Amino acid sequence: MRVVILRARGKIFSAGHDLKELTSRRFDKDGGQAFFTETFSTCAKLMQSIANHPKPVIAEIDGIATAAGCQLVATCDLAVASERSKFGVNGIDVGLFCTTPAVALTRTISRKRAMEMLLTGRMIDARTAEEFGLVNRVVPEKSLTEVVGELAQTIAAKSALAMRLGKEAVQKQATMSVAAAYENASRVMVENMLADDAREGIAAFFEHRHPCWRGK
Amino acid sequence: MRVVILRARGKIFSAGHDLKELTSRRFDKDGGQAFFTETFSTCAKLMQSIANHPKPVIAEIDGIATAAGCQLVATCDLAVASERSKFGVNGIDVGLFCTTPAVALTRTISRKRAMEMLLTGRMIDARTAEEFGLVNRVVPEKSLTEVVGELAQTIAAKSALAMRLGKEAVQKQATMSVAAAYENASRVMVENMLADDAREGIAAFFEHRHPCWRGK
Amino acid sequence: MRVVILRARGKIFSAGHDLKELTSRRFDKDGGQAFFTETFSTCAKLMQSIANHPKPVIAEIDGIATAAGCQLVATCDLAVASERSKFGVNGIDVGLFCTTPAVALTRTISRKRAMEMLLTGRMIDARTAEEFGLVNRVVPEKSLTEVVGELAQTIAAKSALAMRLGKEAVQKQATMSVAAAYENASRVMVENMLADDAREGIAAFFEHRHPCWRGK
Repeated sequence: MRVVILRARGKIFSAGHDLKELTSRRFDKDGGQAFFTETFSTCAKLMQSIANHPKPVIAEIDGIATAAGCQLVATCDLAVASERSKFGVNGIDVGLFCTTPAVALTRTISRKRAMEMLLTGRMIDARTAEEFGLVNRVVPEKSLTEVVGELAQTIAAKSALAMRLGKEAVQKQATMSVAAAYENASRVMVENMLADDAREGIAAFFEHRHPCWRGK
Repeated sequence: MRVVILRARGKIFSAGHDLKELTSRRFDKDGGQAFFTETFSTCAKLMQSIANHPKPVIAEIDGIATAAGCQLVATCDLAVASERSKFGVNGIDVGLFCTTPAVALTRTISRKRAMEMLLTGRMIDARTAEEFGLVNRVVPEKSLTEVVGELAQTIAAKSALAMRLGKEAVQKQATMSVAAAYENASRVMVENMLADDAREGIAAFFEHRHPCWRGK
Repeated sequence: MRVVILRARGKIFSAGHDLKELTSRRFDKDGGQAFFTETFSTCAKLMQSIANHPKPVIAEIDGIATAAGCQLVATCDLAVASERSKFGVNGIDVGLFCTTPAVALTRTISRKRAMEMLLTGRMIDARTAEEFGLVNRVVPEKSLTEVVGELAQTIAAKSALAMRLGKEAVQKQATMSVAAAYENASRVMVENMLADDAREGIAAFFEHRHPCWRGK
């Protein structure tokens, strides 16, 4: 496996948590507290497992992505949406502010745009999501799977080792100081340079041929 | 009170500090040092009190917003500007680099754009401010107050409790690592979920009726 | 000297590290490890010396800027590109992920756009680079040097002291919490306000004349 594609069936990419399930747990002895705690903690772990996954993860969105569903789009490394897709962090409309989605959203789009979506529950269309940097590309519905497939092929044709080293390091350095980030990144560059795949890739480049990756 | 709107009379939203007042204090025994220290410290406190305010704060700009005035726009949660508005961090023109405004500006718009404004003193028009993400929306002068009013109404119709919990948490997590941010955000989600307003909001959603918020 | 302009001869602004030189060191006793370590460490120091340089640094790009060459563009305070310029962090194509360039790129353009460039090796044209905020402005080839010259003149006409104090503080506060950033920035504002150049600049402003900077 070289790349992960997250895709949904039907008109909803993801509407986030199941409010019916959450509500049903209000009858638990503790009013649902333990269940809610576990649910949001599991969700946060899932999101971080995507960011920390050694393979690139692409969201393929055709439809609605709201609340934790929008968080999922923000969290994926890349996102491609159909023209009819819509995005929102609209928990505030039901009295439940999208606080966990905000962690991903504020790290993906600029502050005032994230705040407007969070405070107003406003849904944005696919073009706006592209302008905001929430998705990489918007395409007609009928070419969505093809475009995502091509993007995945492009990535799958690279060295899996370089991809893993690089993705890990990029995530890790995000909240470091510049000096610490460079120290870590430089170490990873040396490790990558000493690997077989960099030797092969650079040799292939000079010999005008396709590289033959070994993933190490 | 559910939402704060900052609006100015006349053609200047805010031109920042009063340079005449600052200059007059150069005759103080210490050359103004104590006064300057207090002034910039008070300004920084004011800005942080907006970010930390439990209610959303909207800047309604019709005219000039420069230096600490531009910092104020950058600091507010949301900003709507009239078409004739202009923005700049032009302290460098008088030999006083907009260092404190830069704290808000660099956290609101992207790095190279912030640097150009800071290093050159360049004024940008309202459309450019929207493209940069410094303001959320640009509208004709005559509809400015109406549009801001509608935005405020949208926000005022939400649960004040969810708004407070969410805004606080979003501010708090901004400079945390992703893992710490999720830990904090998940705790807030549980607290929000256990509150009456979330129960009411979710119930109203399933019953296709307007929620009746109690703010707790 | 008031401002630094980085410009290249020929069709390549910078293609980053010399892969032939790196490859030749694979025959070193340690397989090149010491040389690679020194190379990437030196590169990281160079990049940080630009960010920490007391004078603004402008990249003038006419042509290709790839890998560490794109990192250089991202690192400079400002960047102006000709219409035919192209940008990419395409190390992944040769099995060497652009991990160190990512440090600069992810701090300059938004996350999903940076990830797409890093994971796919995609080259972007000058207009896209401007939209992404990687460059400040795109102009026809024939006016490039003139436009950069004007930008440099604008900056050179400011107080070198205010420029140094401001640029230093803006870099320093970037990864601080908002509270710490304001504390530091406020101190710098007072220092700047007490300097001769701020006194002169503000006086000149009130007297409607050009300031005469002394750089102190």
